[in-house]
Amino acid sequence: MSYFDAASSLPLHPVARQALLASLDEGWADPARLHREGRRARLLLDAARETAADAVGCRPDELSFTTSGTRALHTGVAGAAAGRRRAGRRLVVSAVEHSAVLHAAAAHRAAGGEVTEVGVDRTGRVDAEAYARALAAGNGTGGGVALACLQSANHEVGTVQPVAEVAAACREAGVPLLVDAAQSLGRQAVPEGWSLLAGSAHKWGGPPGVGLLVVRKGTRFAAPPPVDEREAGRAPGFENVPAVVAAAASLRAARAEAEAEGARLRALVDRIRARVPELVPDVEVVGDPVRRLPHLVTFSCLYVDGEALLHALDRAGFSVSSGSSCTSSTLTPSHVLKAMRVLSEGNVRVSLPPGTDAAEVDRFLEVLPEAVRSVRAHLGAPAGSGAPAAEAEETSAGVTVDALGRLCPAPVIELARAIGGVPVGGVVTVLADDEAARLDIPAWCEMRGHDYLGAEGTAYRVRRRD
Amino acid sequence: MSYFDAASSLPLHPVARQALLASLDEGWADPARLHREGRRARLLLDAARETAADAVGCRPDELSFTTSGTRALHTGVAGAAAGRRRAGRRLVVSAVEHSAVLHAAAAHRAAGGEVTEVGVDRTGRVDAEAYARALAAGNGTGGGVALACLQSANHEVGTVQPVAEVAAACREAGVPLLVDAAQSLGRQAVPEGWSLLAGSAHKWGGPPGVGLLVVRKGTRFAAPPPVDEREAGRAPGFENVPAVVAAAASLRAARAEAEAEGARLRALVDRIRARVPELVPDVEVVGDPVRRLPHLVTFSCLYVDGEALLHALDRAGFSVSSGSSCTSSTLTPSHVLKAMRVLSEGNVRVSLPPGTDAAEVDRFLEVLPEAVRSVRAHLGAPAGSGAPAAEAEETSAGVTVDALGRLCPAPVIELARAIGGVPVGGVVTVLADDEAARLDIPAWCEMRGHDYLGAEGTAYRVRRRD
Repeated sequence: MSYFDAASSLPLHPVARQALLASLDEGWADPARLHREGRRARLLLDAARETAADAVGCRPDELSFTTSGTRALHTGVAGAAAGRRRAGRRLVVSAVEHSAVLHAAAAHRAAGGEVTEVGVDRTGRVDAEAYARALAAGNGTGGGVALACLQSANHEVGTVQPVAEVAAACREAGVPLLVDAAQSLGRQAVPEGWSLLAGSAHKWGGPPGVGLLVVRKGTRFAAPPPVDEREAGRAPGFENVPAVVAAAASLRAARAEAEAEGARLRALVDRIRARVPELVPDVEVVGDPVRRLPHLVTFSCLYVDGEALLHALDRAGFSVSSGSSCTSSTLTPSHVLKAMRVLSEGNVRVSLPPGTDAAEVDRFLEVLPEAVRSVRAHLGAPAGSGAPAAEAEETSAGVTVDALGRLCPAPVIELARAIGGVPVGGVVTVLADDEAARLDIPAWCEMRGHDYLGAEGTAYRVRRRD
Repeated sequence: MSYFDAASSLPLHPVARQALLASLDEGWADPARLHREGRRARLLLDAARETAADAVGCRPDELSFTTSGTRALHTGVAGAAAGRRRAGRRLVVSAVEHSAVLHAAAAHRAAGGEVTEVGVDRTGRVDAEAYARALAAGNGTGGGVALACLQSANHEVGTVQPVAEVAAACREAGVPLLVDAAQSLGRQAVPEGWSLLAGSAHKWGGPPGVGLLVVRKGTRFAAPPPVDEREAGRAPGFENVPAVVAAAASLRAARAEAEAEGARLRALVDRIRARVPELVPDVEVVGDPVRRLPHLVTFSCLYVDGEALLHALDRAGFSVSSGSSCTSSTLTPSHVLKAMRVLSEGNVRVSLPPGTDAAEVDRFLEVLPEAVRSVRAHLGAPAGSGAPAAEAEETSAGVTVDALGRLCPAPVIELARAIGGVPVGGVVTVLADDEAARLDIPAWCEMRGHDYLGAEGTAYRVRRRD
């Protein structure tokens, strides 16, 4: 078995395991109590805070332990927005932030605030100048910006964001910047210039149940109520000292190993990026090829159901994740792929845990083509035959394919089959009500070199170019 | 060393430890993922939910795991209040709820809601009829009650609350009842009749980082945003599967042992309740002597600084906690003792963990008198001499003692020394600005049989009776 879903969660780092076991015995008491068990827990908590602060590059009293990275982001966004209420009620976020940031932004909007989303290019990278313009817009009109949010690197496609440039623009505009460093904290240095920083321990090999929220001295902050006296009033509830100790110890360990391990994994990912398009037809590798996390690569396979491919790979011994709508309970495709305007169907994210060896990657490259082929065969995907689909109906206006009620990737498969039945310049209309079609039909046209003419309701029109 | 602060936190139950270790290896992955590591984590999470639901007496889909008991209460109060917004904006809570409930109520009030606090008697017990009247008040005037909150038993004095009676009144009034069962869930059955229930794993020997929030089917509930898809939308953030598994396993184990162990601890606590007033002069044992938690007893010692006594006991090998203002960073005495209108100075809470043996309790009863004596001697407490204090100033209106700027228990010590210097019927005025004096001077009068005449600002007047 090869676990290639490091970006979701990592197994416990050996250092974390050791620290957790020791502090289960030493750190179970309430650190707010004055008796010896309480004082012992307090000492462990203080030491963990110093270790984590040292790893992050902040003062210990700037760092609060939360119960998850999600909670750190929720509290960070709400607290900074409330602290800056007088400056304005607008948040600026990138369109590809983690859902925890977008949920916090949605709650801010529901409470009467405004949210500006900054888009990304086809690699998933934010344009720092567009971000700076978003910071400036609305200034002096009462729509002042309370807070800006930017991830250090994207969790789905690995693209590293221009944090330093955006931080400079924020400084210029006098707006605090919250950096979601969940994907990079155990892997890479965090660029300077942030006012708030969030992280999640189980992403670097620490235990679940621990997040970090760092608020730089001088940043206005009013934690969302109710709060209590724990963690500087920023994370209510009994401190989880054993897990916090394990989280801090493993953060230090992960960062000590990060440079060497990152270089090694980067080479393995380069190999996947280069080989997958050679081995599998009709694949789009997405994300920035250079400015990216060392261990993560994402690609999408035409005419493939992401969930079916995930299961096929699972049977072959590989655990990966997918941003295809097919795998999501909400039936909308990944907001990241959507913002990038790239194909979402048959999407696979490979994220390598530390210690992955080259033989595992080679084996993955061996089994992938057959896994994709079997899913395509099962779905009846076009194999160059171009035979019109049974459902196609030819009229004077061209061919219409009815894929209403059918889920991704069926609409694109039907489109691909139908396009062979019309002459160059002819038009295929696809009727599709799966949300993913809105993303995947234009993406397919882009990949295949056909003209996407647009959609009216559930009718998508495509003109054959060659 | 004897750890007698079980009500704060318990060390890991052996069953919890074993379950935690096993599930660190098996349950570290994201239970929302479809690969085998994710499915394994999901199976563990589902099984833990069934175990916990069975222990609590609810359906698995009614139970969400939160990151702490505090978070369960915060979310429970906010979610039920939001779900019942149309019924009214008023919360009814007892005055002796855990601070997590009171903080949630304060947040509700700050957001425009109303809060009615129901008082308690001198044992800390809520009057069910007074509670029922509070539910009725304001009905039909737009001040309808959204939610009622009542603890199963008090965390500071152990008094068990009349949950069944209050639940009946809530049912009558059509108001959901949230029961904070944190102190009793691993020790006693929870009375029926609640709509929402909260608990905290580290109180029953589970790991820190896990709380329970149960919302009965049919209870209107709108979790405070932001939320995500985790835990039925009631507890955002990555699930802490290993800790949840350990929490559920230890809840079952603790409840299986509870009856026998409770009877044993009840006898030990009876012994403390009976012996302490015999061994230590000027002590008040507080809380209901019968309707109480089996393992918990609280008493207050006149002329004693609670923090100093706690340290003296710590040096003698006993870890206890204290609700005296002296030990609190906020410098206000425990809101529970305040609501009970009992002495707060020299307050000690003894709460026995499972497995405490009789010899430990005997040893505690041996060392306590000397610990109290040494603190009193250090503070110059009256030993029956009744010599007037140096600061006392005699006028025609009686004796005035200036204790301004001095912390508890100094004002009461000065009062006790001065009262011997006035004739029967004479009046002592104590000038004191420590917040605890407002509670402790009347409580001292009650204990000593003198007449408390009231306070004007910082001047407290007491008439000697005999």
